[in-house]
This record gives sequence, C-alpha cells and structure tokens, in this order.
Amino acid sequence: MKLNNLVGLRFKERPADCVIDSHAFSVRGGYVKYVANGIFSLYPPMKRITAKIENIIRQEMDAYDCQEVLFPVVLPGSLWEESGRYESVGKELLRFEDRTGSKMVLGMTHEEAAVQLVREYGSTYAKYPFSIYQIQTKFRDEARPRAGLIRVREFTMKDAYSFHTSQEDLEKYYDKMANAYDRIFERAGVPGVISVKSDSGMIGGSVSHEYMLLADAGEDSIVLCEECGYSANMEAADTTVDNSAASTEMKELEKVYTPHCKTIEDVCKFLGTNVEESCKAVMYQKNMTDEYVIVFIRGDYEVNETKLTNYLGDKVHPAEVTLESGIVAGFCGPYNQNAKVQIVYDKTLEGIANLCAGANEEDYHYTGLNIKRDIGDVEYVDVSKIRTGDICPCCGKKTIKISRGIEVGNIFQLGTKYSKSMGMTYTDENGVEQTPIMGCYGIGVGRLAASVCEASHDDYGPIWPISIAPWQVHLCCMRVDNAECKETADRLYEELQNRGVEVIYDDRDVRPGFMFADADLLGVPVRVVVGPKNIKNGQVELKTRDKSVSELISVDTAVEDIMSLIQKLYDDINAQVKPRI
Amino acid sequence: MKLNNLVGLRFKERPADCVIDSHAFSVRGGYVKYVANGIFSLYPPMKRITAKIENIIRQEMDAYDCQEVLFPVVLPGSLWEESGRYESVGKELLRFEDRTGSKMVLGMTHEEAAVQLVREYGSTYAKYPFSIYQIQTKFRDEARPRAGLIRVREFTMKDAYSFHTSQEDLEKYYDKMANAYDRIFERAGVPGVISVKSDSGMIGGSVSHEYMLLADAGEDSIVLCEECGYSANMEAADTTVDNSAASTEMKELEKVYTPHCKTIEDVCKFLGTNVEESCKAVMYQKNMTDEYVIVFIRGDYEVNETKLTNYLGDKVHPAEVTLESGIVAGFCGPYNQNAKVQIVYDKTLEGIANLCAGANEEDYHYTGLNIKRDIGDVEYVDVSKIRTGDICPCCGKKTIKISRGIEVGNIFQLGTKYSKSMGMTYTDENGVEQTPIMGCYGIGVGRLAASVCEASHDDYGPIWPISIAPWQVHLCCMRVDNAECKETADRLYEELQNRGVEVIYDDRDVRPGFMFADADLLGVPVRVVVGPKNIKNGQVELKTRDKSVSELISVDTAVEDIMSLIQKLYDDINAQVKPRI
Repeated sequence: MKLNNLVGLRFKERPADCVIDSHAFSVRGGYVKYVANGIFSLYPPMKRITAKIENIIRQEMDAYDCQEVLFPVVLPGSLWEESGRYESVGKELLRFEDRTGSKMVLGMTHEEAAVQLVREYGSTYAKYPFSIYQIQTKFRDEARPRAGLIRVREFTMKDAYSFHTSQEDLEKYYDKMANAYDRIFERAGVPGVISVKSDSGMIGGSVSHEYMLLADAGEDSIVLCEECGYSANMEAADTTVDNSAASTEMKELEKVYTPHCKTIEDVCKFLGTNVEESCKAVMYQKNMTDEYVIVFIRGDYEVNETKLTNYLGDKVHPAEVTLESGIVAGFCGPYNQNAKVQIVYDKTLEGIANLCAGANEEDYHYTGLNIKRDIGDVEYVDVSKIRTGDICPCCGKKTIKISRGIEVGNIFQLGTKYSKSMGMTYTDENGVEQTPIMGCYGIGVGRLAASVCEASHDDYGPIWPISIAPWQVHLCCMRVDNAECKETADRLYEELQNRGVEVIYDDRDVRPGFMFADADLLGVPVRVVVGPKNIKNGQVELKTRDKSVSELISVDTAVEDIMSLIQKLYDDINAQVKPRI
Repeated sequence: MKLNNLVGLRFKERPADCVIDSHAFSVRGGYVKYVANGIFSLYPPMKRITAKIENIIRQEMDAYDCQEVLFPVVLPGSLWEESGRYESVGKELLRFEDRTGSKMVLGMTHEEAAVQLVREYGSTYAKYPFSIYQIQTKFRDEARPRAGLIRVREFTMKDAYSFHTSQEDLEKYYDKMANAYDRIFERAGVPGVISVKSDSGMIGGSVSHEYMLLADAGEDSIVLCEECGYSANMEAADTTVDNSAASTEMKELEKVYTPHCKTIEDVCKFLGTNVEESCKAVMYQKNMTDEYVIVFIRGDYEVNETKLTNYLGDKVHPAEVTLESGIVAGFCGPYNQNAKVQIVYDKTLEGIANLCAGANEEDYHYTGLNIKRDIGDVEYVDVSKIRTGDICPCCGKKTIKISRGIEVGNIFQLGTKYSKSMGMTYTDENGVEQTPIMGCYGIGVGRLAASVCEASHDDYGPIWPISIAPWQVHLCCMRVDNAECKETADRLYEELQNRGVEVIYDDRDVRPGFMFADADLLGVPVRVVVGPKNIKNGQVELKTRDKSVSELISVDTAVEDIMSLIQKLYDDINAQVKPRI
C-alpha cells in the first residue's frame, strides 16, 4: 500500500505521558490511539502486526491439536458464581446488569466458559485428552493501566484450556504447550523470552510458568542464575543464606540501652554489630481478620509478601500498630514478646548464634540472642526476597541476578479447581465418576507486540522482526519529480507485490529526512531506496532497518536481491526456533 | 482432523426451543453452545466457518482500499455523549460504570470510535477519501434474542466507515461497497442475497440498502417485483393504488345510521358498499407529547408505522382514546372532525369520488363523502403498507410480491450526522473548514453463517458451500476392522492433507447410519466413502453433500478426482461472482 494513504499520523515529539519507549513509538508511529484509560484502538500497522502474531499462535496451537473456538466477551454472572469467582475476584472483574437485571461480567479469562462449553462433551474418558483455545477480546478493570499496550484494561488474548484424566497426561501436554510457547516467541522474533517458574499461589501443588521478555522497562522482577540457567519469579525463588561467616560462639543474652535506635541499621551502627547478625521485625495484619503477624527476618533482608501470603493462606497488609496491640514498635523482638500475635521466623535467621533483636521495651534491644537456647525450637519459613548475589537454589553458587521482565505469556497446571467447582465429571474405564484435570495457557497478543518493540528498537523507532512486521519492504522513492526514480520505484512496487511481497510504498513529495523518519517509525525490516544519484548508475539502495545490511544493488536484479534478503531474514529467525516435540 | 477428536456433540433430537432449522442444526451439529440469552460460544466447526467468511470479507474490503483497524469493545460513555447517542439510543445500548465510576458502554456499532480514531488524521482534504473497517465483537442488549445466531445479543460484525469530501465521492465509494457486498455474498455461496432500498429513517435525504437473504424464516418483509427486479423493504416501498375502478359519479353526502358497526368491514357489509371505497381511521399518539394523530386510509390498507414516523418526524404508539380527546372511537371520520388532533390523509384515498367514513357521532357514518368537495384540498401522504399484487413503483405493473428475508448486511450513506456532532472537520483546498461526509457498511458474520444454513440445508443438516464449509472433504472409513478399508482411508487422509485439502476424517468404529448422520450434520460438501465392498473392486465412493454428484472412482485416481471435484465446486461458486468495478 502507499504510505500516503495509510490511516494514522506519525510525528516527532515524544508524548509527555509515555514512560517507556514502546509506548512512545506506538503513539508516535501511528500504531495505537488512546480511547480511554487502558483502552486503545489499533491503527492499520498495529492491526497487521497483531494479525501476524495471531497467525503464528494459531499455527502452533493447531500443531498440538488444540482446537479453536470462540467464547463470549459478555458472560452471565451465574457462570462465575458456579466457580466461586464472582465473589472471590476483586474489582478487576467488571460486573454489571443487563436490561433484564441479570448479573453479567466481562470475561477477563475464560476457565468458566471453557468448562461450560465442554462439560457434556467430556463426560466419558474416551474423549480425553482434548484442548481448546480462542483468540478474543478480554477486559480486566485494572486499577493502574500503564505503558501503552503493556498494561491495559481491554486486550486481545489467546487463551487455551486442556482437559486430562491424569496428572501425567496433563504434564505431557503441559510440556507440549511449553514447547509451543517457545516456538511462538522464537517465531515472533524474540528468542530471548525465558520461561520462569512462578508462584504456585494459594491453590497449592500446582506448577506454573511465566514467559518473560527481559526488558528494563518490565514491571516484573525475575530471578536468574547465569551459571546454571535457573530462573523463577521472585515469589517462586527460594532464598538460601549462608550464615557460616557469622560468629559461632554463643554469647550471653544481654539487654542493652539503645536510645532512639528505631531501625535495625541504627541499632547495629550504635552497637557496632553486623546487620547480618541482627533480627528485624516486620509487622503485618491479615486482611480478613486484622490479626497481627510479626515476621522476624535477618536485618539485611526484606519480606516477600506473596511468599508470606502463600504461607499464611491469607492476604496481609502492613500493620497499623496500636497501643492496644501490645507491640512495641521500633523495639519489637522475639524474646519476651508478650503481644498476642502470630510469629513467623524467616529462614534467613537460621543458624545465627548471636542475634541483636528488639527487647519489646522502649529504647532497649537484646544482644547475644540465640533463638534455640532462649526461645526454643521454632519453625523457619522462607518468606524473604531473594537478592542479587544470593545462592542459586539450583546450583548452589552465589550467582543470583535480579532482572526486569515483561510477562508475555503463562502456562498453568490448574488441577481440578474449575472442573470440581463446576461439577464437570467423566466416567472412567471402570464406570466410576472422576473429575478431569485442567491446564490453561495464555498469551497477550497486544502486549507481545509492544514487548517486541521494547526489546527491539533504536532511538528512531521499532525494529520489527520480519515475521511480525506490518510490511516486509519499505520502498522509498526519493524524488517523485525525477522520471527515472519514479518509474523504477513504481515498477519495483508492482513487481514485488506480484511476487507476494508486502510493500509499503512512499512516493510522497517530501524531504528525505521526513521520509526516513517515517520509515524508522514504521520499523519495516527491509528498506529499498530509489534515489536520483544511484539510479543514474542503474542502482538502488538495499538496507535493513537494523543497519546490518546496507548495499547498492543493480536495478536489474533488485527484485531477486530483495526476495533473497527477505528469505534470509526469515531463515535467521527460523534458525532460532526449537523443533516441535 | 479426526472426527473422533472434534470437540462438540452431535445428536438426533431437534431441541424444542429451536423454531428455525438453522438454529436446530447449529445445536444438533455441535456448532454453537448456549451460554445466556442471545449469547453463544462457538465450537470448532462454526469457528472455522466464520473464519472463512471473515477472510472473504477481508479480501473484498482490502480490494477497495479499506484498511483494517480494531476498535475497543468497551467504550467511554463520553464518546457516545459527543454524538448524542448516549441519550438517544434505548436499552439495547448496554451502559455501566467502571471501577472509578466512569460511564462506559459496550460498542453495538462504532461510528463514534471511527470518528475518534481519524479525527486528527482527516484534518486536511489531501487525506480524503479514506475508509477503515474492523471485524470485532459487538453487544446489543436485544429485548428478544431468537433463532440461534440470527438474532443474538453478542455477535461478530464487520463494520466499515468511509470518509469523503463530497456527496459524489461518497456515492462512488458506496457503489464500490455495494459491489464488494455482492461479491462477499456470492463468494460465500449465497448469490440469492438481494440488496433492497431501505428506510432512510429520520436522518432524511440519506440512501441506504439492506442485503437480504430470502428465507421463509426471515423476520423482515421485503417488497419485490419479479417483473422489473425492483426491491425495497416495507418502509421504503411507495404504495401506489389504482382507484379507477371506483365509481366516479359524485353522490350526495349523507349521514346514515350504522348501529354497532365499529369496524370499516362491518360498516361496508351493513351498507353493502365496497371496502375499497371506504375511509378508515387509525389513531396514534406521538411518543414525546402524547398528541393524537389520526391517519385516514383506504379501508383495505394498513398503516406502516415507520413511514408514518418518518413523515411526522416523531415516533408514535397506538392511541389510548380518552373521552377528553373528543375522538369518537369506531365512528371517526374526516368530515365534521372537531377533535384537536393532527390529521394525515394517506395516498390510498386519493381520487375516490364517494367514500364511506365515520361521522364522529356514535352509530353514524357518512356515505358519498368526497374529500375535495366536502373538506377541501388536503395533502396526501404515503404511509400505507404495500401489499402483494400492488402496483410496482418502478415498472407500474401489478406485480408486487412480499417475501420474507434475513438481513445479512447493510450499507448506509450517513452524511454528516457523526462528523458534525463530534466536531470532525477538514480544511479544503481553499483553506476553508468543512465537515466530512461519511458512509458506513456492516455485515454480521455469525448471522451470515446461520443464514447460509437457513438457505442451504435439507432434512438432515446444512449443505455448506465449499467456500465457507468447515472442511472441504468428509472422509468416511466404513469399516476400521477391515485392513484394506483402513489402509486406503488412512492413505487418502494423508495424501489429501499433503495436497492442502481440509479433511475431516471419520475412522470411528460406528454404524454406517450413525456415521452418515454425523456427516450430514457437518454438511461438508465433498464426501469420500471407503467401504469394504467397493474397495474390493479398487473403488471408493465420491459424493457431494447436495447429492448432485455420486459416483464410484478408482482408488488409484481418487486424490486427483477429489481435487478436481473440489476445484469444480469453487469454480461453480466463482462463476456467479460479479467482477470488481
């Protein structure tokens, strides 16, 4: 198509509200249009990109016998009542009433709809395993949409659901989906997406993985070991500390005066002791009951609230310490703790002979506290945030690195959570009623597009991988008033299109700088420039958006050369794609 | 794919709640699943059908430079307030609030979103004309969803919007879209879809057409002339009556006693006069003001309320006649009418010399009423329903036929309704600000699929045209325990797939009747049956779902023969497709 007719404006100025580059380019390049908070329309270039991503996803899902269906966007509340989620999910589930007063919701995920669709079909073991997916609009009423298409309220998602008669069978299919996901991201030109073990949450026993594209702009922290390849999200990474450097000789328990020392750092500084041999108190309250929970943790570590929530089985919020509570804020410690609270000992404290800890008395701390001797046997739980340089839970080396990433997909062994609550059963070989086991598998299409841009751009615009680029070739006619230029460019446009190449053709009468700025913003991988100087020598310029190729080619062989370069770009991507399993 | 793995159940019993065949087959054939009133999930076969329809639509839109975009499903209420539709549209617009209390709506059509997307882009004449479309989920909170996918609340629709600087330019593009629509329906295998002139509504001056698939189950009435090809919907068809057969001699106006004759038929019977020479009164009230409107119309005609609404510029409802109104119900007529009401004379009364009409007095009518002589010059307006056998407004013959149809698409010359209200302007060649003129063009994808089934089925299931069929070939292995059968069928399955043919393969160990019933319900156009008898002679059966082909072919040439038949079916369809203009 001709660039002159392309609907959407491109411009130079970075919008003030764009915090990350992909968001800025999506606005500046005429990819998206803000409609409301977290709600965008897509202009043709972004629609073309997402259509290509969707096709890649379709092919990979189909290859593993996942069958495409379509669930409604608007779902009856009664369906979500069956699973219990109508009550349990927060405000991100948009609830409303239709004209008859019936409760409805906007689908933010479709486990309920999936079970409803196949509940009768899957009533006998002979139908298993099977899996279905859709690519459909979803709505999640996020409190804080941000970063363009990265965190939105309305989005297009591929969500798949598989049904099994055994955990083994689920695991087999889960591995296939993991392979499909690897292939999808590799084919989309972002082989750097890594799968990380993720928080199994309060469901318990389940395995899940998040697919993370490493990017500084990402809002998730990822735990990586470059030594052994271990990866996990913060919630799923076990913290292991080495307390062997601490003094091993047990000292006397001693109450010391520590005036105005309210933080553990202050205390250690005042006493001249190591923060690695201190015990910090972090106070929470359970959301449901307001019951106090005190976590004792090594002074230099932080609490990971998701780990804590998973351990407690209750969500928590930072405590409002009242006088009534009996907690002496700033001087809270495990010894002589008389407040009626739940106490959690973090694993980072394990094996330290002499701790400095609060004395539960204004301006006093204990030194020489030995938990085993002074308090007794306690259960140590891992609720701390792992840190850079910590011990890898996999290879045991002190090689942990924390990186930022954008979650572009996830796969989840659901178990029987939905099939059980929604009464889906099948009759097994022996005529006995059983509950099927489910898996679910999601990819956000728009977020993936934005993430690719985040991972692959320069100062001037996105550098789209050819597999998802809005067009394959960006053809520039530098001088429309030069007959030779115009004729050559017109002919190339015609011939390339006849060969099935997707060409965006810029034959506007504009300055070269303006033309190239637009080309950079559209990020098309192959660029062909027909200029008056080169054309005199029977040549045109062939470049790639990433600058790896820049050469003069003969007009006579131009179409062939361009076709070869396109093929090479696809080959480069495909070389990185894992085989199917 | 193997039929054994296809998600969805097929069964024999017609569900009691299915009034029309396409609805029954969509449930019995495992095409759709009821989720809530007017809300369905699609099983794989229907998803495959709608995907093919969407691709046909895409190709035809793209061919006329319509650019694909994507609008949100959830739109801010403020956008609809700009156009005035937040207030003016009824309950079918689903309104709700998000977590912040902002007004939101579910998009039931996207004129506002289209204007919002291109308002800045289209700010100079040089960008015109341009057009955009999307294929997206819509929600219309219909009071009475019915007939499966024919009238639903949630549906997938292609909606296009074009923008122009002159009426001529709009008309040129409108003709292109009309051609695209013809091609879409022809390519989808329903060349019988006709475009009918439709009610221009209260916008005034606008042209619009509905695309109707003739089907007895349709809920729309269509006016057709088989003589000249004229077509219109009821609202748009002008009624012309021939009153030349009525007596021409003017009689005296005479008040006659007509006891208990409350309907015009009673009166004519009592007096022995022709109902064609009577004047009936039909009473309405305007919705906004409750003002009375009396329509006088020839006794044997009915009022078309949409025509009346368009004439009045106000919606109306049947009147509640009170004593206060001064109207003498049952004896209401134009002469001596003293009630304070708006009077409308329908064209059917024009030219009748002697009318029988109410005398506005209990139990009395007039005879010999001549409107011109007794009342004076009145304006005659066409607000009557055209009838079978009436005069064609186009060729003048008494050839009008009323048929039933399903509306599968519509195209509309919108004018400046949305651009004006939403403040979209462009600067013309002379630097003057102008308001662009719009067109809009819709097709309901699911409804089209259901309509094709309605138009093309037999007692046993749908007969899908190959261009939109869920698969191209239905391969039946009649005896899986017969090695030769199984091997041949397996090989055909393999080879056909390698040739790019879409095959659904039934290799279940089930009775032939069961197998064929399923095949009929899936409606795949080409059927290949591998049975033990024929295979002994080196033959398999090749059939079409519509029974036009049924032959034995050699196993050796089977793949080629099947490919040829597929090609022929496509050729048959393509032969009926109009060229692009």
